[in-house]
Amino acid sequence: MSESIRVFASATVANVACGFDILGFAVNAPGDEVILKKKNTPGVTISQITGDGGRLSLNSQENTVGVAVLQYLNKIGSDQGIDITLHKKMPFGSGLGSSAASAVAGAFAINELLGGSLSTEELLPFAIEGERIACGSAHADNVAPSLFGGFVLIRSYQPLDVVRINTPPELYCAIIHPQIEVPTKEARNILKKNIRMEDAITQWGNVAGLIAGLMQSDYALIGRSLQDVIVEPVRSILIPGFEKVKQASLQTGALGCGISGSGPSIFSLCRGQETAVQVGKAKQQIFEQLGIGCEVYTSQINQQGPVILE
Amino acid sequence: MSESIRVFASATVANVACGFDILGFAVNAPGDEVILKKKNTPGVTISQITGDGGRLSLNSQENTVGVAVLQYLNKIGSDQGIDITLHKKMPFGSGLGSSAASAVAGAFAINELLGGSLSTEELLPFAIEGERIACGSAHADNVAPSLFGGFVLIRSYQPLDVVRINTPPELYCAIIHPQIEVPTKEARNILKKNIRMEDAITQWGNVAGLIAGLMQSDYALIGRSLQDVIVEPVRSILIPGFEKVKQASLQTGALGCGISGSGPSIFSLCRGQETAVQVGKAKQQIFEQLGIGCEVYTSQINQQGPVILE
Repeated sequence: MSESIRVFASATVANVACGFDILGFAVNAPGDEVILKKKNTPGVTISQITGDGGRLSLNSQENTVGVAVLQYLNKIGSDQGIDITLHKKMPFGSGLGSSAASAVAGAFAINELLGGSLSTEELLPFAIEGERIACGSAHADNVAPSLFGGFVLIRSYQPLDVVRINTPPELYCAIIHPQIEVPTKEARNILKKNIRMEDAITQWGNVAGLIAGLMQSDYALIGRSLQDVIVEPVRSILIPGFEKVKQASLQTGALGCGISGSGPSIFSLCRGQETAVQVGKAKQQIFEQLGIGCEVYTSQINQQGPVILE
Repeated sequence: MSESIRVFASATVANVACGFDILGFAVNAPGDEVILKKKNTPGVTISQITGDGGRLSLNSQENTVGVAVLQYLNKIGSDQGIDITLHKKMPFGSGLGSSAASAVAGAFAINELLGGSLSTEELLPFAIEGERIACGSAHADNVAPSLFGGFVLIRSYQPLDVVRINTPPELYCAIIHPQIEVPTKEARNILKKNIRMEDAITQWGNVAGLIAGLMQSDYALIGRSLQDVIVEPVRSILIPGFEKVKQASLQTGALGCGISGSGPSIFSLCRGQETAVQVGKAKQQIFEQLGIGCEVYTSQINQQGPVILE
């Protein structure tokens, strides 16, 4: 068995318009990289974190990767000492599941380093616990797609019920991350506790349409279903230029467009890479006109989950 | 071209637990039978209705079949005279889409009788208009599955967007109709106008799970998803014995159980005919213990829609 391992885990788009709190999918880039090294002294240490601007804790019990690794070791009853290096290669607070990518990379890496005794499904709770440290609550709509790859439905939390949804081969995503801050807590607090039955019916009609469209490779149905009448009208006001970006995205041929997670990133689903690239450019232009810096990511729906790097 | 036609259209289960107002499926029996005869004098008349206990209007403009036929003739610009006979072969006000079955039989029959110039999809508006006469509103969650067969999603009404959902071959339904009256209007009026966001999320997670389960032939997932946390808790109080029937149904091996349409019929989805028959019997016992008369229907999910009878 090798003495160290380097693992990359992907960013994810949670909610996906109509699927608030139940849907998420993984992209090929950006993502986070974790290096785990066996050491001769017991305990889990973090020797280095890059790309976080000094914002993440080096205390393994307060760090999303550290917690995922600690929980894993605890579960399998191992006292193997581990040193962690974390390279954040994606923006913080972007709505792209940054902490989930780190937690997944950690859980996947430790399992591989120690012989891979647990299945991917069995790794989910450790990644969820890692993410809890960052978010304060145990959400799975970023962690599950980053771990399994593809499009994932979290049907239920109690008990946890995760379902993989097949997606059509030409489905691409164009994401834009505007460099503004939308704290997850604020994005959650402005949501209403009660909603109109009428809107809920519209929403679950769209959720059903999205699942059917993905599974039937019906791109037009996917497009018609990517509508969020409940969360987007409230949250989009926190993202300057959202409506313009959405309009430009649809005019450039995107199937649909919405807020990624709690924002401020905005995703568009597209048929084909060429359209996704054009949509990414159209979105970028809007933020440039507004004088807001941004990054664009274009990617197929990630299918493989975390990967071991040389 | 023949001078007359006899058509059977199926009963339907709308809502299907978590899919309030957006899902429905057709069964093989019961259903309604319509006979249309060409006549030499213009206009649409209804010469006979059986099985309705005298409750339906013989005025073609006030009758669900009459309206469907009239709207069709109007649309294609035909002044062909038609006489209608309607045999109601299923209970009224049962929550099994009785008026929808009649409207679908009428729309399908007139199109076939006059040469079948319109596609099945194009017949939907006439059946919806027929149903509007009976219900006061233009719902499609009974009409669409009766017309297309199978499991149907009404993703949206404006514009109308109907999606067929494939179902696994061993999926059977056991329906019980207790002989009590639950007026559709009352069943609708007791629903709340606002619901908790938390419950809505649970509901659309289940809707997504049900669609995925049906399309992946994952019977266990279908079962886990057949839960309604919004409408059933309110409406089930109108149906004496509902909880007992549900419990007996699940204990006998049903995947899930819920109110059919606005009730009082209760459907159970099952894997295999044998289980469905046993579940039907278990449900019947409960109503017999309560001294409530009932009919039981066991059927595969209907796949073909209306059929022409000899």
